[in-house]
Amino acid sequence: MSDQKQLWLTSLKTSNPQEGFELAIKLSRMGVKSTQPDVDVLKRLRPKYAKNEAGLTAASQVIALNFQTISAANDYWK
Amino acid sequence: MSDQKQLWLTSLKTSNPQEGFELAIKLSRMGVKSTQPDVDVLKRLRPKYAKNEAGLTAASQVIALNFQTISAANDYWK
Amino acid sequence: MSDQKQLWLTSLKTSNPQEGFELAIKLSRMGVKSTQPDVDVLKRLRPKYAKNEAGLTAASQVIALNFQTISAANDYWK
Amino acid sequence: MSDQKQLWLTSLKTSNPQEGFELAIKLSRMGVKSTQPDVDVLKRLRPKYAKNEAGLTAASQVIALNFQTISAANDYWK
Amino acid sequence: MSDQKQLWLTSLKTSNPQEGFELAIKLSRMGVKSTQPDVDVLKRLRPKYAKNEAGLTAASQVIALNFQTISAANDYWK
Amino acid sequence: MSDQKQLWLTSLKTSNPQEGFELAIKLSRMGVKSTQPDVDVLKRLRPKYAKNEAGLTAASQVIALNFQTISAANDYWK
Repeated sequence: MSDQKQLWLTSLKTSNPQEGFELAIKLSRMGVKSTQPDVDVLKRLRPKYAKNEAGLTAASQVIALNFQTISAANDYWK
Repeated sequence: MSDQKQLWLTSLKTSNPQEGFELAIKLSRMGVKSTQPDVDVLKRLRPKYAKNEAGLTAASQVIALNFQTISAANDYWK
Repeated sequence: MSDQKQLWLTSLKTSNPQEGFELAIKLSRMGVKSTQPDVDVLKRLRPKYAKNEAGLTAASQVIALNFQTISAANDYWK
Repeated sequence: MSDQKQLWLTSLKTSNPQEGFELAIKLSRMGVKSTQPDVDVLKRLRPKYAKNEAGLTAASQVIALNFQTISAANDYWK
Repeated sequence: MSDQKQLWLTSLKTSNPQEGFELAIKLSRMGVKSTQPDVDVLKRLRPKYAKNEAGLTAASQVIALNFQTISAANDYWK
Repeated sequence: MSDQKQLWLTSLKTSNPQEGFELAIKLSRMGVKSTQPDVDVLKRLRPKYAKNEAGLTAASQVIALNFQTISAANDYWK
């Protein structure tokens, strides 16, 4: 958990939608890390998961939820 | 991940709802690719997944979430 | 995918909530078709899925998400 | 599907939150019926499903999504 | 279902976020009861479910959705 | 449940997005505790769950939903 004590999220603002999408990916991963902070365990889990389409869809769903938040925070980059 | 470094999402604006739905599909796939960037692996997974109705419903759910974002960004094409 | 090239979604506006709900159902199905465009495969999958309550609930969830979008687009038919 | 041709959703307005919650339950069931319109099949599936806590939670999730829509439509009964 | 005929949800307003969270928990349980109104069945299901972390996460997800609704109804207790 | 009687959620306001994310994690865990208040049981379940990528993704999804609420409550820290 110690790496979450570091400053990693100072703003939800990004310069464009694509950077917003990348921030959404980051938030999704930090959500995973909050439950499993051991990076070595995550690295062992990842390869198997990344070959499981249901898992990939679930990961994409979390990103979609976080992208909703980031998009609203950026007023949809209007 | 290198293909995400390319510029692929410059705006959430589309000319009509149908193009917005297509963009929602694209976002959903980019969410999948962020976890599994190897296109060959994705191509191997797709056929089996596409014959699994639960997987298809899950994919449709991610699209629905992204379509919410795109629709709001376009003020629902009012 | 060719049938998605056809114009099928020109507006999110409907005359009343019930037509909005029907449009939400349509969006949910188009989401499924974007991953599995082969109608024959979908027809084979449907009967089994429609006898699986977990699958039916999942389908209802996607409709609920799309109905949120359609309802907002119609200002909740106020 | 014939019963969906009937008029069953003319408004999202309800007189209070509880009636709104009941409407959310109705929308969730209509979402299920749109995939499986055969009431006899649904009646056979229900008892088993209703003894499965995961299924009950999933059903509650769909209701929660629809209740979000109904609540917004009623300006949260403020 | 008879217990749902009782008045149990007259307002989405609460005096603070914590009471709002408790109301979100209540809504989530009422969603479950709408599908399985038999309290004895629910009591039998609960202990096993409460030892299943996936089920606990799913329950937390429904609460999160209902808490979104309650929070908006209370203008986020600003 | 007794520990929920304690005051643990007096405000949704946080000084920055990162603290908001941490509050979202807390809400997600309180959602779990509302179904399983026995901390010893939760401690026994956690290690196994934290080695299951599907479970980690599901946990991240609940956090994403709660982060949507917290972000809106803080006007996205604009």
